[in-house]
Amino acid sequence: MASTRPSVEEMVGGSSNKVDTVHETSIRVNTGSSSTMEIHKVCLPPNKTTFQSIKHNFSEIFFPDDPLHKFKNQKPFTKFLLGLQYFFPIFQWGSDYSLKLLKSDVISGLTIASLAIPQGISYAKLANLPPIIGLYSSFVPPLLYAILGSSRHLGVGPVSIASLVMGSMLREVVSPTAEPILYLKLAFTATFFAGVFQTSLGLLRLGFIIDFLSKPTLIGFTAGAAVIVSLQQLKGMLGIVHFTPKMQIVNVLSSVISTEKEWSWQTVVMGMSFLIFLLATRHISIKKPKLFWISAAAPLTSVILSTILVYVFRAHTSAISTIGHLPKGLNPPSANMLYFSGTHLAIAIKTGIVTGILSLTEGIAVGRTFASLRNYQIDGNKEMIAIGVMNMAGSCTSCYVTTGSFSRSAVNFNAGAQTAVSNIVMAATVLITLLFLMPLFYYTPNVILAAIIITAVIGLINYQEAIKFWKVDKYDFMTCLVAFFGVLFLSVQMGLAIAVGVSVLKILMNVTRPTTVVLGNIPGTQIFQNVGRYGDATRVPSFFILAIESPICFANSTYLQERILRWVREEEERIVANKEQDMKTIILDLTAVTAIDTNGLEAIVEIRKMLEKRSYKLVLVNPVGQVMEKLESSRTLELFGEKSLYLTVGEAIADMSKRFKIEI
Amino acid sequence: MASTRPSVEEMVGGSSNKVDTVHETSIRVNTGSSSTMEIHKVCLPPNKTTFQSIKHNFSEIFFPDDPLHKFKNQKPFTKFLLGLQYFFPIFQWGSDYSLKLLKSDVISGLTIASLAIPQGISYAKLANLPPIIGLYSSFVPPLLYAILGSSRHLGVGPVSIASLVMGSMLREVVSPTAEPILYLKLAFTATFFAGVFQTSLGLLRLGFIIDFLSKPTLIGFTAGAAVIVSLQQLKGMLGIVHFTPKMQIVNVLSSVISTEKEWSWQTVVMGMSFLIFLLATRHISIKKPKLFWISAAAPLTSVILSTILVYVFRAHTSAISTIGHLPKGLNPPSANMLYFSGTHLAIAIKTGIVTGILSLTEGIAVGRTFASLRNYQIDGNKEMIAIGVMNMAGSCTSCYVTTGSFSRSAVNFNAGAQTAVSNIVMAATVLITLLFLMPLFYYTPNVILAAIIITAVIGLINYQEAIKFWKVDKYDFMTCLVAFFGVLFLSVQMGLAIAVGVSVLKILMNVTRPTTVVLGNIPGTQIFQNVGRYGDATRVPSFFILAIESPICFANSTYLQERILRWVREEEERIVANKEQDMKTIILDLTAVTAIDTNGLEAIVEIRKMLEKRSYKLVLVNPVGQVMEKLESSRTLELFGEKSLYLTVGEAIADMSKRFKIEI
Repeated sequence: MASTRPSVEEMVGGSSNKVDTVHETSIRVNTGSSSTMEIHKVCLPPNKTTFQSIKHNFSEIFFPDDPLHKFKNQKPFTKFLLGLQYFFPIFQWGSDYSLKLLKSDVISGLTIASLAIPQGISYAKLANLPPIIGLYSSFVPPLLYAILGSSRHLGVGPVSIASLVMGSMLREVVSPTAEPILYLKLAFTATFFAGVFQTSLGLLRLGFIIDFLSKPTLIGFTAGAAVIVSLQQLKGMLGIVHFTPKMQIVNVLSSVISTEKEWSWQTVVMGMSFLIFLLATRHISIKKPKLFWISAAAPLTSVILSTILVYVFRAHTSAISTIGHLPKGLNPPSANMLYFSGTHLAIAIKTGIVTGILSLTEGIAVGRTFASLRNYQIDGNKEMIAIGVMNMAGSCTSCYVTTGSFSRSAVNFNAGAQTAVSNIVMAATVLITLLFLMPLFYYTPNVILAAIIITAVIGLINYQEAIKFWKVDKYDFMTCLVAFFGVLFLSVQMGLAIAVGVSVLKILMNVTRPTTVVLGNIPGTQIFQNVGRYGDATRVPSFFILAIESPICFANSTYLQERILRWVREEEERIVANKEQDMKTIILDLTAVTAIDTNGLEAIVEIRKMLEKRSYKLVLVNPVGQVMEKLESSRTLELFGEKSLYLTVGEAIADMSKRFKIEI
Repeated sequence: MASTRPSVEEMVGGSSNKVDTVHETSIRVNTGSSSTMEIHKVCLPPNKTTFQSIKHNFSEIFFPDDPLHKFKNQKPFTKFLLGLQYFFPIFQWGSDYSLKLLKSDVISGLTIASLAIPQGISYAKLANLPPIIGLYSSFVPPLLYAILGSSRHLGVGPVSIASLVMGSMLREVVSPTAEPILYLKLAFTATFFAGVFQTSLGLLRLGFIIDFLSKPTLIGFTAGAAVIVSLQQLKGMLGIVHFTPKMQIVNVLSSVISTEKEWSWQTVVMGMSFLIFLLATRHISIKKPKLFWISAAAPLTSVILSTILVYVFRAHTSAISTIGHLPKGLNPPSANMLYFSGTHLAIAIKTGIVTGILSLTEGIAVGRTFASLRNYQIDGNKEMIAIGVMNMAGSCTSCYVTTGSFSRSAVNFNAGAQTAVSNIVMAATVLITLLFLMPLFYYTPNVILAAIIITAVIGLINYQEAIKFWKVDKYDFMTCLVAFFGVLFLSVQMGLAIAVGVSVLKILMNVTRPTTVVLGNIPGTQIFQNVGRYGDATRVPSFFILAIESPICFANSTYLQERILRWVREEEERIVANKEQDMKTIILDLTAVTAIDTNGLEAIVEIRKMLEKRSYKLVLVNPVGQVMEKLESSRTLELFGEKSLYLTVGEAIADMSKRFKIEI
């Protein structure tokens, strides 16, 4: 076995004895060890039965993270314990729980409660639901998540995007003011189906579906939704009574202008003052992350201050609308309000699926972010089950869609939360509020809720990221824009759907129009690289080396045939123009051809036929495992005959050159 | 520059001075030339402006075959001539036309005419249209194709699949017996839109859309359609009068059984006799391809014989239904029957698009097949324009959807056709038939048309190919089955749509669940290959080398993070179990990562972070051009720091090993 490898010049130099100027001028012949180069065989992957390969594919698709690896080689009792811990992570951390952890969790729990109460009320309004539903939704779901969830930092409750989408989709069919009970029923039903959908995704291990909401899609979508939500708040901020029920930017703006007479200056003054206060606290917390509690406490402070103001001046502030009476007491059961038949069932299911997928995306992304910061892992599919169960249970206890909220989790994390106990503390605080403090919200002005919402959603407009997309990946930037404008001018669902379509189109276009590159040899090495990119890579006389960078399949088999013929035609023209040595062999480097189908196999045969008619020999190099299997089982290799398949480009050239010599 | 390359064992052996048993036992240290290995820089592709790269992508997507390359560096007049020849290929071959060619074309033209006349009548019935429309459609379109088309062997006319689909889609909305005029209008309108759609695809150079009908889809779909068509012919074969208008297999079979009383034994006897005759001639021609003319002449022979039989026994054969009166004369204009508004416009457009795409697929595939046999090339986009114009013109001259027919083209080719003149000869024969011979069809029995259709479509069931799919590619087999059963049990359009969805899903699954493989070094070389496939590939101590075989993008960035962590965990377990040397560096071979997006870039950063927390160093190897560009522009490389990017795995190992030595 020769370990000192000859370079390509040497091999070609030693074997090609045609006179050609290019060869003499640009190719250095290496002296020294004259060599026999060993030719390696291209192996087939180990044989597998159909059942084995289906099983392997199945486990790669559905169990890529091998979630059961901890269970291997364990005693039955240990397996049972591990299973219990798997489904109820509380058993995992519960046994090590200490007073010290409790202290951290109480502090962070109280901190997020101060954020959760005003947010709950505000986001419920965003979904056109009574404010109390927002508080109910901050009580039951966090408790369930504390038992089922595996993230230690997720702050659970209603979130702005899912609230907006639910409000926008349901309002298209049912008016929340004209038919409040039906609307409420639909909201609970949608929540139930969101939970069913989320749990199913988790159980069927289809969690990867949420990956199809790519980051550009989400950034564009969220920014669009934030603009829509902010515009909607003009109703509250200006004190408008008769506002358009539509969401599109054009309708909202024209409605604002046409209702100019309804504007109330008291509301505007109060709203603007508190909005400035909230934005200022947000600005402080962004500049100095240690002061995160300032922006966390600001909403509750605003609610308290504004309520006191309205109460004190109640004789003079009839123009400022307030929340009014909220019933005291715990979440009433709502299972009887679920709606399993009738005309509106379809919209409830659709809303459930869309809000379900959006809230999963937020919850899991937030969970992963904080897990990565503290170096633990989140099992996406398991989280989906936790969030799904939480929503199914929520729909029976007067809650609407909840998930891990970004703002709450960030505050939770910064306040030093250690385990899901902080969610329990938050829920307990909400419980006390529900039982005793509800009358205090009577004078809370609606305008303050609008200001809280605007402050929350403005943070969702991530223009810096959009600028980064433009710099790094124009297509991602376009996807982001499509999502943004789709949401603004069409509808929330359409914007999302189109952006997902655009993202998927990118994958398809990558396959439909794959890159093919001409390779040359880097002198003195066995390295073959793109001649357009590596200045020192030189073409090897008599050979034309092409690398295909994509699976070969139905979507590109015609294209590749045409494109390769064009490469060959252009190479012929180049050779004639430069008076170089004629092409004899075309080498297809299949290293980056990660898969092939029957159309692709036929394309290879067809390309070979076309090249043979022009008296070129086609040689294949380094097919990956499954491509090799199919080349073999389709008998394509038989057709190619011997010596048409090599492990490396270098070996192909060495061996073919030797054979040219013999032929001559 | 050192041209004698050290092998990897040498580099590792020379640099790693930790004692480890594996190293001593399994890695041979090569003596001889001790070496300095040159480290090559990974280059960025040449700088391009945004405009340049958009222009480049645009031309790769829409002009991959560089259709204008002949026009480069030509004089204006030559350019004009070439342009004329481009759009009207008749100017290309017309000038060289000779008597010898004419002789061949006349013979083949007459041969296909003898097939075209009975086929035209039969296929029109398949589309629920009057038989005469089939003859009209064999007159105008072939003439136009002769001027515009670039295939020399395509036999143009109505085809079974498009006829069936048009019949099935239109009959869902309008009954061809109750409202024949409306039905006819819709058929012409659908034909018009098919032409518009086809021309647009060609002009917009979107021809690649037809590639999405993969071969398995087409084979399954065609077989399903052939079964449906054959079952439909039971009406004619059994002489049933009241037949179900539905297409699904269940409806048809129950309709056949429930109408048992209507069966006419005379029809059955005649139908079966001629069916056996036709199938026998088909069998002969398949066995001895030189006798192709036997099966080509059989349909006309059957029509003539059966017509004579019915005429002779006309007193006794009232049970056998005949075609009846057909008007003499040329195609009447039908532009006034096109339908551009009203309730049925949507279905006409939909039918036009579906039949348009199906007939394009057949026409272009057939054209390519025969072009490849005679070693010339077909420009798909230009053919689409030719076929589209032919259909638009056809819709104004009482023709329905036509394209290059497989059976006609095969006969045409075998009969020695040299140019599109054979289509002109065929059209002339049809002209004579239309002008003078129409009364002869009065007594032609409908049962003979049914027998002709059955014989034609049985040839479309390509079960051998389906068996090949099973052997070579299970997923392709499944796609084929889905198309087949979808057509049989749902509907023609649904079957097609689902099969296309299944094909696209395969591409997406390839990206969503890409293969990652562990690489090892083939001793004595710089080759790194899958350790699971190449028995002699051995892992390099201290290194763990992974190759990712797919673009890294939103659809797989989460998966890859999890999968790589699992690989690392399993490798750690393996190292502990085998008491091998600890892993220090993880090398990601990006050779087969053909693209990356912003999600993918973040995944790389995230993977690096996760590995760093476990004190592993991450090194990237050989990113392709556009991946390198994005790694650079997103500043990911900056984050990785120096010495984290190599051109080959071998160089990475050599350099890292040297550095380990220094660190120790």
